[in-house]
Amino acid sequence: MKFGGTSVADADRIRAAAQRAIDARNAGHQVVMVVSAMGHATDDLVAMAAQVTDNPPKREMDQLLATGEQVTISLVAMAMEAMGAAAISFTAGQIGIVTDDVHTKAKIKSIDVRRLRAALDAGKIGIVAGFQGVTRDGAITTLGRGGSNVTLVAIAAALEADVCENYTDVDGIFTADPRIVPNARKIDVISYDEMLELASLGASVLHNRAVEFAKKYGVPIHVRNSQNHKKGTMIVAETESMERIVVSGVALKDKLARITLRNVPDHPGVAASIFQTIATNNIVVDDIIQTIADNKRATVAFTVDIAELPETRSVVDRLCRELGCEATFEDHLAKVSAVGMGMRIHTGVAERMFAALAAGKINIQNITTSEIKISVLIDRGQGPQALRLVHDAFDLGSAPVKPAPRKRAARPAGKAKKK
Amino acid sequence: MKFGGTSVADADRIRAAAQRAIDARNAGHQVVMVVSAMGHATDDLVAMAAQVTDNPPKREMDQLLATGEQVTISLVAMAMEAMGAAAISFTAGQIGIVTDDVHTKAKIKSIDVRRLRAALDAGKIGIVAGFQGVTRDGAITTLGRGGSNVTLVAIAAALEADVCENYTDVDGIFTADPRIVPNARKIDVISYDEMLELASLGASVLHNRAVEFAKKYGVPIHVRNSQNHKKGTMIVAETESMERIVVSGVALKDKLARITLRNVPDHPGVAASIFQTIATNNIVVDDIIQTIADNKRATVAFTVDIAELPETRSVVDRLCRELGCEATFEDHLAKVSAVGMGMRIHTGVAERMFAALAAGKINIQNITTSEIKISVLIDRGQGPQALRLVHDAFDLGSAPVKPAPRKRAARPAGKAKKK
Repeated sequence: MKFGGTSVADADRIRAAAQRAIDARNAGHQVVMVVSAMGHATDDLVAMAAQVTDNPPKREMDQLLATGEQVTISLVAMAMEAMGAAAISFTAGQIGIVTDDVHTKAKIKSIDVRRLRAALDAGKIGIVAGFQGVTRDGAITTLGRGGSNVTLVAIAAALEADVCENYTDVDGIFTADPRIVPNARKIDVISYDEMLELASLGASVLHNRAVEFAKKYGVPIHVRNSQNHKKGTMIVAETESMERIVVSGVALKDKLARITLRNVPDHPGVAASIFQTIATNNIVVDDIIQTIADNKRATVAFTVDIAELPETRSVVDRLCRELGCEATFEDHLAKVSAVGMGMRIHTGVAERMFAALAAGKINIQNITTSEIKISVLIDRGQGPQALRLVHDAFDLGSAPVKPAPRKRAARPAGKAKKK
Repeated sequence: MKFGGTSVADADRIRAAAQRAIDARNAGHQVVMVVSAMGHATDDLVAMAAQVTDNPPKREMDQLLATGEQVTISLVAMAMEAMGAAAISFTAGQIGIVTDDVHTKAKIKSIDVRRLRAALDAGKIGIVAGFQGVTRDGAITTLGRGGSNVTLVAIAAALEADVCENYTDVDGIFTADPRIVPNARKIDVISYDEMLELASLGASVLHNRAVEFAKKYGVPIHVRNSQNHKKGTMIVAETESMERIVVSGVALKDKLARITLRNVPDHPGVAASIFQTIATNNIVVDDIIQTIADNKRATVAFTVDIAELPETRSVVDRLCRELGCEATFEDHLAKVSAVGMGMRIHTGVAERMFAALAAGKINIQNITTSEIKISVLIDRGQGPQALRLVHDAFDLGSAPVKPAPRKRAARPAGKAKKK
């Protein structure tokens, strides 16, 4: 059971979260709680760092931020003991959540669950600090945005948990962000792949690294509200019936920047070396768009989160000096995406989306697709309107779109996209 | 160099402390900083715990409190990097400060300085979290009151440091607490043994465990003010000239409770078993007073800090049921003590102290002595007045009492007390 920052923001909420875990244990389960830093604790720590430096070393930032979750685990364990339930708290280091040494964005390499399992077998509820890890040589790392969910799923996988509950302050995964699309509807069941697309496209409830972990190890995730007992959204392995729904959800990723490199030498390996250099600098590329030009010169374009733009700019400027290309940077973009397993077998999805945007006079600056999603790059100012238009175009605000079932045998081989 | 909580209470003070360390490094030294939690951070954490429970499990309390120093080390390291000096922060776990598992009062068993020394040899300033340790199986411990000073001296000893600077918010060790005795004077040099007596008698600048460590490993401690560059007090090994000063300082320990066990069976081993039971429960006994009575029954009395009284009471009540004795508990006492190496060779010290208290109509409820100190137990309400009377009796407010030197050879053998 994972409780995010708002679900452990004060003593009362800590007790409420503890009670959930105690109820689950009393129902006969072994329970591990993963918790985030309380409320705005992480922001407060970031603000403290900002008072001493504009450019904190990442190792020290991790050393600082990890205290946020450490405070929560000890308070939750104390609250549980006061409520009569045996509990023990663990930092990531104490249960061997070993990561690589990419500070502020570390990846989990292994978890040694022996100590955690011993605590569970002794009848205790284990309280684990989310968001953090430890390198082989003992430095504290953090797992980046959504890191507590990564911890949740990684521990569930390592323990081979029956179920993995993600408690948050919303009722589940919605067909769109309800703050932007008022008639958005809660989704009951969604596949890992759809959730992965939605998460990487800007749906903020669950980070895609957590979902990837869950998919890899087949851990079902139940996303639910810590303030009520409603059923939330189950994220599970794909089933055939899911394809009946053409579009499961739409997402808006604003704050995107586009970097365009023109006049790039067009011989094998250049693109690879460009993106390798960017990856080496731990910059996460959103989408890659390559257009071959004439005269053995190519244009390479890609998008990144605008938070990554300063670092990207310095890396790209250096690259262009080496390669003799020119770079342009645009920081006013957003991406609207529609995601659904049903795109594999239903036709006309792209046309429906483009028509809706055209009717709203929204200019499409780029299109990217995968087997189960269509994304368009637009001006950031038009993002919310575009999201609502696409949401309505697929009738997501009312009942799910369920066309008459088709036999899967009738579907063309090779999973060809039919947009 | 150790900086206490007030010396790192905000960003400006953190920078000032960092600058001290950088200056020392620029002067050609290798520098380790030990830091406490910022300002009232520890109190804030205690208050957070109090919101969830009245009786926090000690392991969880340590897990919680250790975050205070972890915040400071990372901020200090960030500040230093921003000031252009290479720095790296270490929690106790990261540099293997291994303790026993007595949570909230742990004792250091070993320090593995390899990682710290490697950082120093790489030209970095090492920033170490004071007050904390880690057990062999990875649980975080804290070292109890004054624990950051214990960390300071233990690391200085382990690194065989040339000097160990304790930065605080006062100019050094005083002949008495200046808040109670306005004409108290800063002491320039004091021996470990005198400091040990003063510390255990209530002088709050340095905890006795830190001084014991320093004495054992011969680490000189310079206690000084982080807000100025004055020379403070050097705590060093005893020299012969120190005996010229009859009394170096006086101390008041208020908040004492006396426990008296009457009708205790008087056969060998009973007293030992009583105090062993008390020690097993991690209760720190202040002074022991035993009076043999008639009829093979004895009276055993001892004092403890009143914070220890509830636990002491339950242990003693249990003991008395087993032994058939009766216990009484008094919680209104204080102890005034005079300390000085010179007591070994000068006569009349006790008489001078008792006369001063008698003149002030202060009733002495008990007397304890060691080779270099005389303590009297009095009513708590008279503590401050008694401290001032004894301070004046030995002229501590003006220049040190320096009688004409006597040849040591003239002194009786056996270091007999001459009070």
